[in-house]
Amino acid sequence: MKALKLNQTNHPFVLSEVEAPSPFGKNKVVSIKAAALNHRDLWIQQGQYAGIKTPIILGSDGAGIWNRKKVIILPSLNWSQQSPFPPKNFKILGLPDDGTFAEKVLVPEKNIFPMPKHLSFAQAAALPLAGLTAYRVLFSRCQLKKKDSVLISGIGGGVALMAFQFAVANGNEVWVTSSSKTKIKKAIQLGAKGGILYSDGDWHKKLLKKAGGFDVIIDSAAGDGFGQLIKVANSGARIGIYGGTRGKMNGIIPQMVFWKQLSILGSTMGSRQEFAKMLQFVQKYKIVPVIDQVYKLKDGNKAFQKMASGKQFGKLVLEMKGA
Amino acid sequence: MKALKLNQTNHPFVLSEVEAPSPFGKNKVVSIKAAALNHRDLWIQQGQYAGIKTPIILGSDGAGIWNRKKVIILPSLNWSQQSPFPPKNFKILGLPDDGTFAEKVLVPEKNIFPMPKHLSFAQAAALPLAGLTAYRVLFSRCQLKKKDSVLISGIGGGVALMAFQFAVANGNEVWVTSSSKTKIKKAIQLGAKGGILYSDGDWHKKLLKKAGGFDVIIDSAAGDGFGQLIKVANSGARIGIYGGTRGKMNGIIPQMVFWKQLSILGSTMGSRQEFAKMLQFVQKYKIVPVIDQVYKLKDGNKAFQKMASGKQFGKLVLEMKGA
Repeated sequence: MKALKLNQTNHPFVLSEVEAPSPFGKNKVVSIKAAALNHRDLWIQQGQYAGIKTPIILGSDGAGIWNRKKVIILPSLNWSQQSPFPPKNFKILGLPDDGTFAEKVLVPEKNIFPMPKHLSFAQAAALPLAGLTAYRVLFSRCQLKKKDSVLISGIGGGVALMAFQFAVANGNEVWVTSSSKTKIKKAIQLGAKGGILYSDGDWHKKLLKKAGGFDVIIDSAAGDGFGQLIKVANSGARIGIYGGTRGKMNGIIPQMVFWKQLSILGSTMGSRQEFAKMLQFVQKYKIVPVIDQVYKLKDGNKAFQKMASGKQFGKLVLEMKGA
Repeated sequence: MKALKLNQTNHPFVLSEVEAPSPFGKNKVVSIKAAALNHRDLWIQQGQYAGIKTPIILGSDGAGIWNRKKVIILPSLNWSQQSPFPPKNFKILGLPDDGTFAEKVLVPEKNIFPMPKHLSFAQAAALPLAGLTAYRVLFSRCQLKKKDSVLISGIGGGVALMAFQFAVANGNEVWVTSSSKTKIKKAIQLGAKGGILYSDGDWHKKLLKKAGGFDVIIDSAAGDGFGQLIKVANSGARIGIYGGTRGKMNGIIPQMVFWKQLSILGSTMGSRQEFAKMLQFVQKYKIVPVIDQVYKLKDGNKAFQKMASGKQFGKLVLEMKGA
C-alpha cells in the first residue's frame, strides 16, 4: 500500500510503498479514504514531542471503509469511559502505532464508528481528534451551559473551530480572537457574534467593552497573553486550555482567580464515551467540519507547509484516491 | 462599648469607646467574647484592599453570646446557597459594615450559628473565615476524596492550617511546605506525613522523590513558585488557590496543565450552606483550630505586628474580657 512515511524528524515525509497491515484478533484494517492533519503530526515531524520513533506513518484522523461500511476512526486508544484523566496505557493513533496517512490502518474494532451520514469522507476525516478534543474541553471540562457567553481564542485551528462550531450549534453567543482580520470575518460568517484582533494592544479592554465578559473561554495559546484571558472572564468562568503554542503561562493575577472563583481546566483528547456523545451532537446539529484544503496523499508535504504557516482556516485533509 | 477602631489606613488601631449597635429587624446584636484576625484585616489596615472606608471597626471572625446562647458568626453576608460564585450583594463582615473587634457587633440573624460544644470562645472565634474558606476550597472546589494525597503550601496561616486539619481528619495523607523548619515540625505533630522547605532550591524534585505526586494541592502564595506546584501535581489533580501573597502566577507549563488534565480552581470564602456543612464536619471530628496566641483587645496592635511578621502558626485571637 501507499503511505506517507516519516523516516526521520526534521525531514519531509516520503510517499512510500509499504506492506499493508493485517487484521488480528480484535484489531481490524480500515481502508482509508481520507485522513486529516493535526498539530501533533507537525510537532512530531519537527521532533518536538515525547516518545518519537522513526520510521513511522503518522496520522490520527481517518475515515474510510471497513466491513463494507463507511466508518470514522476514534484516535484515542485504550480510553473507554469518561474520566478525569486517561488510563496509563492510553495512546493516540499515529505514534507509537502507525496511523492514517496510508491506504490502510490497523485499529481496534471498538475504535471504529459509523460515519455520520451527512459528511463526505474528507469532512468525516476532519472530525475525530479536533471534534473529540473540542467536545471534552467544552462540555465535559467546562460544563458549557446554554446561557454561557463563550470566547474562543486563536480561531482557525482545528480544535478551536470545532469548539466554535459546537458552541454556536448549542445556541451560545460566541466571540473569537485571531491575529487575522480575514479569519475573524470567516468566523462571523459561521455564526460568531464578533471578534477581536489579539495583536491589538489592550485587546482585552476593547473586547470587554464590545462583548462584556465570558463564562467559558477556550484557549490553546497560553503564554504571556493568558493573563489577559483572566481579565475578560466573568465570575465563575471556566477557562479550558488544550494547547500551549505560546509557551509558559505568565502574568496571571491570583486575586482575579480567587475573587472571581475561576476554574482553569487543562484538557486533551477524550474517551470513547465522549467520542460517541460528540458524534451524536454532530449528527443532531448536522455540523460540517470546516476544511481549509484537500490535498492528495502524495502532496502531504504541501499540507504540512500550510499548517506550519499558520494561515489555514479549518482542517487540512489528505485524500487517498489515486495515492 | 469598647472597640478597636481603624481611623485611617497605615496607622495603628485605636482602642476607643464607641456607641454600641442596636438590633433592628432581622439584624441582631451579638456580645463578642473573642474575635480573630485574618490577613484581610491586615491588608485593609495597610490600604491594600478594594473599597476601604475609615473610620471602621474591622474583624470578620467572632464568637460570643446571643439570646443567652453561645454562638459563632458566619462572616459571609448575603451568600446563602452553595453556588459557583457569590451573589452581587455579597459582603464580608468587617468592611463595609463594622466587624467583630468590639464588645458588640450587629449581624443578620441567619449569620448566627450555635457554637460547637467542644470549643472555647477563643477557639470558636478562630474558626469561621478560615474554616469556611478551607472547607469550600477543599471540598466544594477541589472535591477532596478519601484516597487523594494532599499538599498544603505555606503551612502556618489560618486557612492553610484549617485545610490541613480538615484533610487530616478526613483521613487523607497530607504533606506541607513552609519556609520554616519549626512550622513543618509542628505540622508533623498535628498529623502531616511530612514537609519540605520551599526555600530549598529544587524543592519540588525533592518532594516528588519523598512523597510522590499530589491529587489535591491548596495554595495561597501564587507567584513564580506556582509553576513548581504544577510539577508535583498528579494527573487529574485539583489545585485550589485562595490567596496570592507572592503576586502574579508565572512559569506555568501549559503542556503539563493539559496533558495531566489539571484543574486550577480559584476559591474564596463560601456560602451559608458550606458554613453549616463545615460546622458539622468540625463537630464530627472534634476539630480544634490551632491558636498561635490570644491577646487582649487593647493589645490588638501587637497581634497585627505578629501577623505582619508571618511568624505565627495558627490564629491570632483577641479576647474582649476586661477590654
